Amino acid sequence: MPKILRINTRTKEYSFEEVGPYANLGGRALTSRVINKEVPADCHPLSAENKLVFATGLLGGSTAANSGRVSVGTKSPLTGGIKESNSGGLFAHKMPKMDLLAIVLEDKPAEQAPFSTIFITDGKVVFKDATEIVGMDNYPAHDVLLEEYGPKLCAAMIGPAGETVRQTATIQFTDPYKRPARSAGRGGTGAVMGSKKVKAIVLDPEFAEKVSASDKDAFKTARSTWVDILKGHPVTAEGLPGFGTCVLVNVINEAGALPGKNFRQGQVDHAADISGEKIAELIEARGGKTTEGCHAGCIIQCSQQYNDKDGNYLSSGFEYETVWAFGANAMIKDIDHIAMLDRICDEKGMDTIEIGNTVAIAMDGGIIPWGDGEAAIELISKVGSDDPMGMIIGNGVTFAGGAFGVERLPVVKNQSMPAYDPRAVKGVGVTYATTAMGADHTAGYGVTANVLGVGGTVDGHKKEGNVELSKNLQVATAAIDSMGFCLFVAFAVLDSDNGVQTMADLVQSWTGNSFTADDLVNLGVGAMKDEQEFNKRAGFTKMDDKLPRFFETDALPPHNVVWDYDEDELQGAKV
Amino acid sequence: MPKILRINTRTKEYSFEEVGPYANLGGRALTSRVINKEVPADCHPLSAENKLVFATGLLGGSTAANSGRVSVGTKSPLTGGIKESNSGGLFAHKMPKMDLLAIVLEDKPAEQAPFSTIFITDGKVVFKDATEIVGMDNYPAHDVLLEEYGPKLCAAMIGPAGETVRQTATIQFTDPYKRPARSAGRGGTGAVMGSKKVKAIVLDPEFAEKVSASDKDAFKTARSTWVDILKGHPVTAEGLPGFGTCVLVNVINEAGALPGKNFRQGQVDHAADISGEKIAELIEARGGKTTEGCHAGCIIQCSQQYNDKDGNYLSSGFEYETVWAFGANAMIKDIDHIAMLDRICDEKGMDTIEIGNTVAIAMDGGIIPWGDGEAAIELISKVGSDDPMGMIIGNGVTFAGGAFGVERLPVVKNQSMPAYDPRAVKGVGVTYATTAMGADHTAGYGVTANVLGVGGTVDGHKKEGNVELSKNLQVATAAIDSMGFCLFVAFAVLDSDNGVQTMADLVQSWTGNSFTADDLVNLGVGAMKDEQEFNKRAGFTKMDDKLPRFFETDALPPHNVVWDYDEDELQGAKV
Repeated sequence: MPKILRINTRTKEYSFEEVGPYANLGGRALTSRVINKEVPADCHPLSAENKLVFATGLLGGSTAANSGRVSVGTKSPLTGGIKESNSGGLFAHKMPKMDLLAIVLEDKPAEQAPFSTIFITDGKVVFKDATEIVGMDNYPAHDVLLEEYGPKLCAAMIGPAGETVRQTATIQFTDPYKRPARSAGRGGTGAVMGSKKVKAIVLDPEFAEKVSASDKDAFKTARSTWVDILKGHPVTAEGLPGFGTCVLVNVINEAGALPGKNFRQGQVDHAADISGEKIAELIEARGGKTTEGCHAGCIIQCSQQYNDKDGNYLSSGFEYETVWAFGANAMIKDIDHIAMLDRICDEKGMDTIEIGNTVAIAMDGGIIPWGDGEAAIELISKVGSDDPMGMIIGNGVTFAGGAFGVERLPVVKNQSMPAYDPRAVKGVGVTYATTAMGADHTAGYGVTANVLGVGGTVDGHKKEGNVELSKNLQVATAAIDSMGFCLFVAFAVLDSDNGVQTMADLVQSWTGNSFTADDLVNLGVGAMKDEQEFNKRAGFTKMDDKLPRFFETDALPPHNVVWDYDEDELQGAKV
Repeated sequence: MPKILRINTRTKEYSFEEVGPYANLGGRALTSRVINKEVPADCHPLSAENKLVFATGLLGGSTAANSGRVSVGTKSPLTGGIKESNSGGLFAHKMPKMDLLAIVLEDKPAEQAPFSTIFITDGKVVFKDATEIVGMDNYPAHDVLLEEYGPKLCAAMIGPAGETVRQTATIQFTDPYKRPARSAGRGGTGAVMGSKKVKAIVLDPEFAEKVSASDKDAFKTARSTWVDILKGHPVTAEGLPGFGTCVLVNVINEAGALPGKNFRQGQVDHAADISGEKIAELIEARGGKTTEGCHAGCIIQCSQQYNDKDGNYLSSGFEYETVWAFGANAMIKDIDHIAMLDRICDEKGMDTIEIGNTVAIAMDGGIIPWGDGEAAIELISKVGSDDPMGMIIGNGVTFAGGAFGVERLPVVKNQSMPAYDPRAVKGVGVTYATTAMGADHTAGYGVTANVLGVGGTVDGHKKEGNVELSKNLQVATAAIDSMGFCLFVAFAVLDSDNGVQTMADLVQSWTGNSFTADDLVNLGVGAMKDEQEFNKRAGFTKMDDKLPRFFETDALPPHNVVWDYDEDELQGAKV
């Protein structure tokens, strides 16, 4: 049975513990349970009392397609509430092969203590002085680790943003191509790692036990059905592999739901210049790769390798939300500037959504001109240094709004909104408002039925049906995040008769424990309950489950829709 | 009957309105009622929907001793809750002589609109372009106004901190000595004035109608009794006139309740160097003045004129809390550095408590060395410019903590604590926790019974009796703030048999409306109810009525006391 590894970052003591009360949990359900049960809800997120949990999903280590996401849980420095942020990369599938279900970083060293790299091997944890790579950007620091640990390196690390405890700081994970290009992006998890003075966690590349399904035949059958489901849906089989997530630029722009100029408009004129189609064209012309997976076992392959004008690697995991944040909300039209901004976010270890929105706030506050990509590059490059402007930008939208005197702040629970205007895509707006995570599209992606016609159709301009839509998606998503699946499997599952049952079959045959479709739903509900409970103890109420007033007062062109839910209606989306 | 003057800062329209539903209210009771009834609780404090209210007290314009405080009310940019901050100066007694009970600034001009000076005269309001004095510090800008309007100038103004909407920004008022030295200090009221592009409000020096008591004989009698009460108490008759509020440095230090080094200790070794006794000695040696009143009719005279080493005026209103913040909490030992820091706060228009605490946070975060007065002077001088460090410092403790990665933040509702450690003076600690204002000693000054033996004795180290003490003081204070009295009258009233009745007699004989001791209590309760109601609608709950966890976990030397209330006990201090 995989263990929970607890590491005290102050005393450097550690223990491999039986799962005990955390049995039958994985991924998000596990991180949220640990945080809810073990972290005082009113502690400061950067204090010794906060914890940082890395958990593999219930299918971690398995060969079930698209089941290799790792969950990171903590009390968020950005929102002050609970946070689960998940990522691709090699970490999740590696952990079970090292007999690990979860790694919990606890306590914190003294203020002036040096940073460490934590090396985890068979039953042993070694703290190594990380001074050599402190202050380095993620790619070069990762290269140093590659040099030391070899090409099978599997690391989680923070960049300068995390070292300086910025509220936008990510944790970056080694991807299948020896790059630190996958992010647990949202909510400042990297700042918690930084507060604990951990620069990187390295899982011993040489240590990997064999793992296998409890019921091999049943697993094989379910696995095959699962591939058929994913390969049988146009989004997972064609749309995402073809153009990556940036396929959405034109789609959402045409729907009038692409927030432009700090959420003032639902369309931008230059959408075609920053579209997935345009990006694919450039990738091909420059010798990049239009399809890549973010973790072993991915059959959707929505990632890519984007090269610069000279054909040199610039970025991957170049997502729709990133392109939107810089390209539409900050009005930067040059896709190469946007790609460079994406790369800098990965280098410093920063959430592209929060930073892109923050750049828009800097523009709104007159700090740099609207649409100026070069100025944006200069601005965000300051993060992680001792430059006070870097301190401001690195702390995200609400903070920058306070610094620059900007009152138009598209945030919920201090976390800024992603690439879908809630006035025009109310299904995702309800999720922004009500999820414990703060504004987060991945917590309940109502874009499905509102725009894409996946899993039915619900009008995104009207209130009717969107609270239910969001709630159902939030529960399903919490379950998906707990099994370790990539969220994109939901596209196929929503339009499939046997999708949920197949996921349950995969879990049951892999783990050997009874797991029905009802158990799957309960897994999601349980995760949400832990999250809502924690936030309640942290002082959150229904008054925090609201959108900023300007969404109610300012109609969004071109459809001139407003946000018109009252707070009690919205509570229907919670469990 | 005095009117309410409403001024639309966008359209420049104005109207003098009958008091209508606001009859029989004054000062804080009036500002809090207007904000509660007219401002959407969930609006952004810098948005057009917020309002800024200036109100004179029920005794404004009268000759009752110490009744000339002006209340400023708004939704606070610092706390996000309701705010009343009051000040001395000439404004409060002048307003009724211009037939004004309140001035309400509404709406806001476009982003790029120039700043205005609003000139108010007999039934007329004139907007004047203020470009000439924009960006200027308060003293030189006030000199320009003195030049224009003559020596009877009566102004309310903001400095560079308010212009740049910093969350620590004050509104400064002309004092009786032609200086802009009196502050509505806490909660960032100056930022709201700045957001409305109002640099100054000038009350026409040439326009002053005669006002008089409704019942002249009764007023005269009450007034005389009132003087006897104030002159009969050792604190108001001797302690405060003798050494100003800084008399408390030694007193609170000896009590082990003087927070040192960002609330790590209850005493500092250098207390004598920054004490009221030392300050009085320097004032006398340098030809300053040890006693001054902050408004006409003050018979306590706790203010002073502090000169620099060369005998030139440096600062006045040099309060205990200011000296404590820089001198003990930031460990700056040189009293002349502290006086210069006080002056800079008045020049930029910044709350000395919040800024002093913020300097301590900068020291805790390693930005400048502990106790370095010159570095502190350089640091806070940046506020009001476009220097990003100035943006950070000017936004106060919580903000600076976020920028510098400091988790030890002595705040309630984002407002930092004043000069009394809540672990050792629990009566004021309960007030910090529960008042709608955020951590504020003036909202219910439990130091009276905890330390000074005024109004009885309650042990400040123990929980017993302190919730009741705080509640009673909060009610009394709200009433005092609504009549326009200086809070220091409370020292005498608490130890007087006929203090409350005499205050009621003053109001009744002045206004001509029946006003009993019960009405006085109800005035205070009503103000608190408005404030609690507003905050509730703004999303505040009992979870916001708490002190930060470190007060529970870290014992305060030398008495090794901790904060040990649970949140439900504390609710007993609310109305």
